[in-house]
Amino acid sequence: MKVMILGVDGYIGFPLALHLLNRGHEVYGLDNFITRKRVRNVKSDSLLPVPSFSYRNRRIERTYGKKINFFYGNAANPEKLYDIIGKVKPDAIVHLAEQRSAPYSMIGLKEANETMIYNIMSTMNLLYAVKDKNPSAHIVKLGTMGEYGTPNIDIPEGFFEIEFRGKKDYLPFPKNAGSWYHWTKVHDSNNLMFANRLWGTRITDVMQGVVYGTRTKETEETGLYTRFDIDEVFGTALNRFTAQAAIGMPMTPYGRGGQTRGFLSLNDSIECLTIAIEKPPEEGEYRVLNQFDEKYSVNQLAEMVKEIFMEKYGKEPEILHVENPRVEKEEHYYNPDHEKLKKLGYTRTKNIKEEIYDTVDDVLKFRDRAEGLREVIMPRTFWKKSGYDYNHE
Amino acid sequence: MKVMILGVDGYIGFPLALHLLNRGHEVYGLDNFITRKRVRNVKSDSLLPVPSFSYRNRRIERTYGKKINFFYGNAANPEKLYDIIGKVKPDAIVHLAEQRSAPYSMIGLKEANETMIYNIMSTMNLLYAVKDKNPSAHIVKLGTMGEYGTPNIDIPEGFFEIEFRGKKDYLPFPKNAGSWYHWTKVHDSNNLMFANRLWGTRITDVMQGVVYGTRTKETEETGLYTRFDIDEVFGTALNRFTAQAAIGMPMTPYGRGGQTRGFLSLNDSIECLTIAIEKPPEEGEYRVLNQFDEKYSVNQLAEMVKEIFMEKYGKEPEILHVENPRVEKEEHYYNPDHEKLKKLGYTRTKNIKEEIYDTVDDVLKFRDRAEGLREVIMPRTFWKKSGYDYNHE
Repeated sequence: MKVMILGVDGYIGFPLALHLLNRGHEVYGLDNFITRKRVRNVKSDSLLPVPSFSYRNRRIERTYGKKINFFYGNAANPEKLYDIIGKVKPDAIVHLAEQRSAPYSMIGLKEANETMIYNIMSTMNLLYAVKDKNPSAHIVKLGTMGEYGTPNIDIPEGFFEIEFRGKKDYLPFPKNAGSWYHWTKVHDSNNLMFANRLWGTRITDVMQGVVYGTRTKETEETGLYTRFDIDEVFGTALNRFTAQAAIGMPMTPYGRGGQTRGFLSLNDSIECLTIAIEKPPEEGEYRVLNQFDEKYSVNQLAEMVKEIFMEKYGKEPEILHVENPRVEKEEHYYNPDHEKLKKLGYTRTKNIKEEIYDTVDDVLKFRDRAEGLREVIMPRTFWKKSGYDYNHE
Repeated sequence: MKVMILGVDGYIGFPLALHLLNRGHEVYGLDNFITRKRVRNVKSDSLLPVPSFSYRNRRIERTYGKKINFFYGNAANPEKLYDIIGKVKPDAIVHLAEQRSAPYSMIGLKEANETMIYNIMSTMNLLYAVKDKNPSAHIVKLGTMGEYGTPNIDIPEGFFEIEFRGKKDYLPFPKNAGSWYHWTKVHDSNNLMFANRLWGTRITDVMQGVVYGTRTKETEETGLYTRFDIDEVFGTALNRFTAQAAIGMPMTPYGRGGQTRGFLSLNDSIECLTIAIEKPPEEGEYRVLNQFDEKYSVNQLAEMVKEIFMEKYGKEPEILHVENPRVEKEEHYYNPDHEKLKKLGYTRTKNIKEEIYDTVDDVLKFRDRAEGLREVIMPRTFWKKSGYDYNHE
């Protein structure tokens, strides 16, 4: 298949491209390297070294004898998408080209609006470009499990039958996100659902859990790391915990740490996205997949990292609960469905502890780099303080 | 009270300002006159003549001995809102400054993105400006009943208790809008709800029905019409029907005409907004009001206009069903709640037929202007054809 990846330089986009290439697909990619720039702007950097895209692509060619067909550009520019989608006519387009950090969107109004505009425009442009230039293409759009929030009822995959005052309908599940970033994904999902209603666009909207891990088969074969962020803006809890433990800082769950989310490894994310691409929805279908393997609380993650450090390195990292910079429930019910991907053939590759072993191994290789990032790990972005003149230095 | 109206030059903003002034409030207004410009851009104009804002304000001063404190500017510019909200410190801010036409948002990608950016940014800017400059202010935000769509179950006012697989929660009602414009209002509602959760901002989110009518007590006292659009982009069905009947065109319901919506007169809209302003929600409350008086189908509206022309002018306007340019159900269940405003004291001022009598009277006064707009009444904006190179001339 011809697969186009928007955001091909990113944490998931890059290993996904490698995997699809390795499975014999023709891979096209777009990026404007803005994640690299945004991470530098918060005085951070990927913990695992990430060379330039052209270097990466030469290395891919040396390993596999073929490379990613790369376009430089911004998905929030409609001309760019019309141009490349019109030229390539891809069978599937994976949209990973959005601002993807919740804390970044909560720094202040400027970053909130930037996230709104960038994310919503890129999805709108994609919908129109597909409709006008390649209407049979399948859009695989990365959303997040965070769109649902943490309701006190089970979470279905996108839609559910609801009974109210004796009448029934099949409706979208109410969303309740926890950051401007997460809300942009809700807005996107609504816009995707509507475009499907208007034009019958074939869409998979992926409600993805939190992705962890540093390695895939292809990153190991090529010796090319994907990026791995450990700072408070771009790093998730597990990333921060492994880095904190590696440099002798206490691991710092936010608040009581009972916040529970769905998680999956980078390997499993790539596997699930590959399944979504290779087994597209029916013509005219808007398909919602809850994409995660298992749910864990923040406290459970910290405990797992602690156990690994004790078992493997004989060290006992401290766990220190800090003031929660976010506005979220710290103890709650959480029971989302995740059956559809299993029915499509997804099975877990490794268990979470094996994955964390590998992650810790990689983090320890770059302990010096982690030391250099020590200052950007602790929370500085507070949801309640998000303002316009807020100085985020 | 000090009340600031964003979009004070508009169909509702202007008579609302007059009414509040007349009730003794101190009224501040912002506008950049972009609706006038957008209407000209689709080769149309307000059927009722609308002089410049400065002329209007002089006339108001002559009538009432006081005027609207006017600021020129764009609500999508954060500096502007920070500046005026910081200076005025209003008790209430009514946000009517959004792109408000569904067909405009469906012309093509350019207009869709313009509507997304303009509407979402203005609400985000307002939320931050209130939080940073005047956190006790009450935001009255104009949403639309169209956010809910036409589900097969009753529509509550914003939230409902839901039981799913034996567990219960009180959640936002699922939204399902029918144009990019309507979706921006859903996105706004979501952003408002989240800002309230973050900062406790006091908000009334008004799910307003379709507003009809040309007159209020104060527009008659000052002799100043509010704008009244009859073209396919900015005019609603009832406006178009009265104009069509006045110039001897057939009235053209879209499709089968069973589309049912909540309606209220301009008088009642002003009355309801005044109630919302004078009876604000509790501190920290996000209040959703379904603001409409009665529900009618498009066919019922056409029949009412027909009856009025027959009774009063002895003419029988033709009703001609045309291809529906929209993507919507043409027969459906529709039963939204609208109790909260009644509990706050709202009662209907006139019945719909009396209002339409007055509207027809005003439209006939400007029959020549209506003749001049004949070419822009029939649908040219088709939901399914919305594209990027779509030529909307």
